[in-house]
Parts: sequence; structure tokens; C-alpha cells
Amino acid sequence: MAAYIEPRVLKGFRDFLPTAEIVRRSLTEKIEAVFRSFGFVPIDTPALEYADILLGKGGGETEKQIYRFTDNGERDVALRFDLTVPFARFVALHRQELTFPFKRYHIGKVWRGENTQRGRYREFTQCDFDIIGSDSAAADFEIILLIYTTMKKLGLDVTIHVNHRGLFNRLLQKMDMGNNLAEVLRTVDKLAKVGEEATRKSLTELAGEENAKKILEFIGARGSFMDVLNQITQLSGGHCPEQERLSAIYRYMNDTCQNPPLVLDPSITRGLDYYTGVVFETFLNDMPDIGSICSGGRYDNLAGLYSKTNDSISGVGSSVGLDRMLAALEALGKIPSSGGCKTAIACVNAEEAGQYQALVAGLRQAGIPCEVFTEETQLTKQFILAEKKGLDWVIISDNGTLSLRDLGNRKNTQMTIDEIISYLSKKYKDA
Amino acid sequence: MAAYIEPRVLKGFRDFLPTAEIVRRSLTEKIEAVFRSFGFVPIDTPALEYADILLGKGGGETEKQIYRFTDNGERDVALRFDLTVPFARFVALHRQELTFPFKRYHIGKVWRGENTQRGRYREFTQCDFDIIGSDSAAADFEIILLIYTTMKKLGLDVTIHVNHRGLFNRLLQKMDMGNNLAEVLRTVDKLAKVGEEATRKSLTELAGEENAKKILEFIGARGSFMDVLNQITQLSGGHCPEQERLSAIYRYMNDTCQNPPLVLDPSITRGLDYYTGVVFETFLNDMPDIGSICSGGRYDNLAGLYSKTNDSISGVGSSVGLDRMLAALEALGKIPSSGGCKTAIACVNAEEAGQYQALVAGLRQAGIPCEVFTEETQLTKQFILAEKKGLDWVIISDNGTLSLRDLGNRKNTQMTIDEIISYLSKKYKDA
Repeated sequence: MAAYIEPRVLKGFRDFLPTAEIVRRSLTEKIEAVFRSFGFVPIDTPALEYADILLGKGGGETEKQIYRFTDNGERDVALRFDLTVPFARFVALHRQELTFPFKRYHIGKVWRGENTQRGRYREFTQCDFDIIGSDSAAADFEIILLIYTTMKKLGLDVTIHVNHRGLFNRLLQKMDMGNNLAEVLRTVDKLAKVGEEATRKSLTELAGEENAKKILEFIGARGSFMDVLNQITQLSGGHCPEQERLSAIYRYMNDTCQNPPLVLDPSITRGLDYYTGVVFETFLNDMPDIGSICSGGRYDNLAGLYSKTNDSISGVGSSVGLDRMLAALEALGKIPSSGGCKTAIACVNAEEAGQYQALVAGLRQAGIPCEVFTEETQLTKQFILAEKKGLDWVIISDNGTLSLRDLGNRKNTQMTIDEIISYLSKKYKDA
Repeated sequence: MAAYIEPRVLKGFRDFLPTAEIVRRSLTEKIEAVFRSFGFVPIDTPALEYADILLGKGGGETEKQIYRFTDNGERDVALRFDLTVPFARFVALHRQELTFPFKRYHIGKVWRGENTQRGRYREFTQCDFDIIGSDSAAADFEIILLIYTTMKKLGLDVTIHVNHRGLFNRLLQKMDMGNNLAEVLRTVDKLAKVGEEATRKSLTELAGEENAKKILEFIGARGSFMDVLNQITQLSGGHCPEQERLSAIYRYMNDTCQNPPLVLDPSITRGLDYYTGVVFETFLNDMPDIGSICSGGRYDNLAGLYSKTNDSISGVGSSVGLDRMLAALEALGKIPSSGGCKTAIACVNAEEAGQYQALVAGLRQAGIPCEVFTEETQLTKQFILAEKKGLDWVIISDNGTLSLRDLGNRKNTQMTIDEIISYLSKKYKDA
């Protein structure tokens, strides 16, 4: 007896109490509803996979962060650290069962044993959506439109910054710097952090003064979408398919919505990611400083590592950072309403537990959640409990007389059950 | 180059393709909607916990099945193997932040590295719901009512078998067999497997012929709820609180619904589980052989192992086996409709990708999912693709003329977008 184990959670891991979990669930429900309205379908994959599948060609950083171990059957296994690698494996394995273009989303937890100093979590939820098996500009555009529509649905004003990796590649090729792409990208990516002068210096060392100037001119191009497109097209050698692609996406967005929140931003390169075509990042107009909340782009060969055939599957996709988005919604006071329970029926007489449940069945059928209090205590105590639970109304059934207590003004009004249902339905609709 | 990793998943783990995942999601959505209508709130806990927390006092079987390893920080960690143990730890840790009685549900994945021979999975989804911090019969009853309401919502006819562990304990105490409870339970639990004669023999060895007869009479009592209650009350020594509890639950159920599907079944003991009071199992009337799809009961001291204080938290709860339920729904042809995408707009001219999206925005707002095809191919090919995807309708926008193709009868009808919306809204409503 007297055994005791201290209750605690691992560093970087979190419990979600009801208030937080309700919000997380309404958020993903809202996002999913938009995805589904576009005909995107959900998939799921195991949390645990063979380590070689997850690590792939991947080098040091991933290996250091991954939760990897030997299972009871002596298999080398690991917890998934993102949803992209499992998706690539999924597509290679199920290629024959899928219909292309394949539009899927995947919401799931991923695990990274990284240093949690900067408030990062070791377990978090990712939300990926992709169209694969299509090379068309219409697919690039649909992913961007889907981001815009989802954010609008959540009440968020966003600006989507778009670019095309191919134009930057052309610029470097024109300078005979094609082989230095990785180095140049690394340097350019530090621009915001180290400032223009330091970047110019590094670029000059890499590419010479003249080329450094052109690179900075390219990534610094500003103005309307079409102005910037003209500038960077010229810098990278003139008319080309990449220019046409960006122009088509812009045209499609304008055909779909007024004043589309699209900026052509040549500084968006998505670093050393595996993107090969259009890339994009999404910023909140009211909180640009928290960085991109939804990024992505087009890639060439999703499942190549797991495929014996040479016919590659290209696609375009994006990922929402749910934790970052939740933090933003909270800061902006735009937490989605939970549609949670706001009403209880008091327990005046414990023997009437069955009648209480029967009484509120009509509310529940009308879409009004209602809790049944199970403990026969003083009514004032039950009102206090209801307030503590964040409820707004308490139904009191006393000797066949029904009344509704408004916890806001502490007034009881005698009503029939039908009156209560129609009154609360209206309140719920207004909320 | 030419690296290749064979795409595969671990034994006992599964990918969920869209068709299966859509069903899983609609199922949990429907279940959650009922839970929430009763005022139950969701929580979540980490997949990974300290191994000592999860293993607790737990002995050999759990230890053999659990995925346990040392993380990069030299911590002894494990993947959760159920949602009960994490809930106990959760309650001990957050006791001060919770309001009691606390009604929560938790839907999440759990992992067990058990032998998968009998088609069991190593990763599966559990769905637990509990009321803790209440000793009342009204709470026992509410969990049972919640099971019944949820199953009804899913179109399943069930019978809920109820019993009270305390009555069986009284019977054994009356025979001075109180200390042999575990052995007797183990023997009794084998009844269905080994038959009455073998059980009688084992019980006679344990308890003598006379007592063996009484035990078999107790667990074999049959008849109406109240008849059985009278029989087993008498056998266990007459009027007692356990009898009153069962009688109250039966009364409450009758006050709430006509012909409540409640059977008092003294053979339900839930073996060596930690239940101390009312216990129950749920059987499908059309498929009783697959066993209980939702079991549970009342327990005394949920968080004791993780608490320094002596005030224990009792509760009552249950767990739905989602995989088993899905299998049953499938076998019974009662898979919930997905509300998925049944409509696409064809790509007649790739340049009109923006107009297509604008056209179908109205459908999506009206709750009708619609996919936009992104590849400009022959219309007949697009119809074939739509059929392959399981769609029912294709919208064709050709030079400003709109028509709707019914893939069932292969007829195109010229319609305005508003006509299409109202036509499809009606179809969706009827479905």
C-alpha cells in the first residue's frame, strides 16, 4: 500500500484541459469543413514507422531530433516527425489504389525530441494538404485559394506571399552560379536576420560585386504583383514558363475574388526545402511578426525514394501550424466559439434523475447541449457550480413546475419546456 | 542517386485510405456530438509519458505489451497503452483546475506491442467517457443512458447488460469466501468457454458443493430485471444498498425511455478489472456474437496512485471499441454517410480555373462540397475520372453556358448556377 508516483508530464509535452481542447477541436473542425468543401479527403498513417522509412536520405538534424528505438520484435522504429515523409511512403505504397490528381489532407500529431528552450513543443499537431499528380497552374492556384478561404472562414485577414523557385535558379544560371544555389540560398535566407549590408558582403564574396547587386535587386523587388513579375523576369533572362505560371496564378486569383491578398515576394525562397516551383508563405495582416502561419509550394518527385519506377509524382501542398495559429487567434480575440454546453438542469430531487434526462432530451435534439446535474444539493450551490462551469442557464423542475434561471441577471422565469427550447434556440443562434 | 527504400508499414499498424478515414471521422464526429449534447467535454494527454506513470503498480502483461524506450534525454518513457491510466494521472495533476463532478471524454490512439496473430492491431483508437467526483446512482444511470443514446444515434439496436460487483461480493462474504474473490471471479469468467459442468467442478473444489451451487444459481439467474434483482438480492443476504442502486438505475431508465434495453445479468463481473460497483456491457441485438462493444462500470479511487491526499475520487465510466464498432456497422450495412464530395466542375478550359472556383463558391457556401478539376482533358475522360472518384454530378461550364451532368443516367441538363445549387441541396438533403 501507500505506493505513490508523482503525477507529471514529460518536458515539451502537454495535457489539454477541456477549455483548450474544445478550442483546438473547433479549430480543426472548421478547417476540415473548408477542406472537404473543396473535395479534399482525409487520410491517416501510423504514428510509428520503420526508422529507415522516416529517416530516408535525411541527415544529422532529423536523426538527432527523432524518437527512435528498438521495439520488442527487435525492429528499428521511430515516431513520425512530420506528415510529409509518411505521405510520400503512403503514396508509393498505395499508388494503385489512388485516383490522380489526388487531393488529400492529414491532421495528426508528430513528435520531435528537440531542445524545448524556446517554448517549442516535442508533441504537436500538424495539418497538411496537397494536390498530387497534377502539374497545372490551376492546382498551385487552388492550394493558395484554399489557404485564403480557410483563413477567411476563421476570421483572419491574411496576405499570401508567392514566389517561384525557378526564376531565382534562372538568375543564378545566367550568372554561372547554378552550382552555388545552396550557398546563395543560405546567405539570402539570413537577410532579415543580419541586414542588407552583411548580406551584400557575403554575396560579394560568393558571386562578385556585380552579381551580388543583381541578387539583392532581385530579392528586393517591390511593387504591384505584375510590376515585380516584370522586374524579376527581366533580371532572370526574360520571358519563361516560370513567369507564365506566376502570371496565371495571379490571373486566376483575380478571376475568383476581388482584391486577392497576393504579393509577389522574391525574397521567399523556402531555403533548402525540397520545393522546385511555386512557393508561398501566409502572414496575418494584424500580426505579421509571428511569421508565416501556412507555408508550402510545388515539388517534383514526392515518392521517389520509395518507388522503383521512374515516373515521378509531382504536386503542390501546404502545412498549417495549428499551435501558432491558435496563439494568434487568442491574441486577436478571434477564438472560434465552441458551441459548447451552456445549460444544465438542476437536481432538485435525486429520485427524478430519469425525468430530468427525459425533459432535456428535446433540448439536445434541437441542438442545445444540456448537462444534467446528478447531485441533490441546495439550489444555490448548484447555481454556483453552474457559474464555475461557465454555464449561462439552469433549468429548475420543481414539483411539476418548470423555470429557467438566467445566471447573468439571476432571475428565474416560469416556462414550459417548449418555451425553454425556443428561447435557448434563439440565444444559441444569436451567439 | 538510385537510393530506394521499400515502402511498408509495421506489422499491426495501418494506413487509412480516404474511404476508410472518412467513415472513421464521421463515426467519431457523431459520437462526439452526442457526448457534447450531454455536456461532456473533451481532454487530451500526451502519447508519450514517463514509463513509471503508465506502468504504475501494473505487472507482467502490461510491461510485455508496452512500447517502452529511453529517450535522447535518458528518460525512461513509453507510449500510452490505454486512456484510463493517463486520465488518472491527469486528474491527480490538475485536480485544482477541474470542477467536480467532472464529465469528460477522450478519443485518442493507444499502442500495444502485442501478438497480432488474431487480427489485433498494435495501434488503435480508444474512446473513453467518465463522470468522476460523483457517487450517485444518477451518474451511473447517465453513463448507461449516454451509451444507449449514442448507439441509437448510430442506428444500432443494443441491449445493455448491467450488474453490481457488490452483490457478488456479499454472496461470497456470506459464504466466508470473501478472500477468494479473485479466484472465484477467474473461475466464473471461464463459464462461457468451458461450460457449466467444468465450472461447477472447479467451484466445488474452491467452495464446496453447496456454495458452488449457490454461485451458479446467482450468476445464472434469469428473468425480468426486477425478478433477477429479487433472486440475487435474496441469495446475497437480502436488502442492501447495492440492490437499491440497481433498482434506482432501472427506475430512472424507465422514467426516461420506453422499454429501456436493460438486462440485469449477474454473469457480468468484468473479471479482475478495477470496478467496484455497477458494471455493464453492451451487445448489438443484430450481432451479439461479436461481444460487448461498450463496457464499463463504477470505480472507487481513480487517481489514488498519483495522489498524496487520502480523499479519493470515485467515478463511473465506459469505453467504446471503435474498431469493433466499425466492423459491426460495416457488417450491418449501417456505415454513416460521409457527407463527402459528390460534385465536380469540369476543366473545359484551363485558363478559366479562376472562374470555375468563383462559380462553385456558392455551392460550397450552401454546404455542397464541390471539387474543381484542374486538368484540361477530353470531357469524357473527366467523366470517367469523376465516376472513379465516386462522384454523382459534374458541372460543365462551356462558353458561358452551364449544365449539370448526372453521372447516373449520363444526361446533361442546362441550368443556371442557382438552379444547380437548389437541385443539389435537395439531393443532399434527401441522401
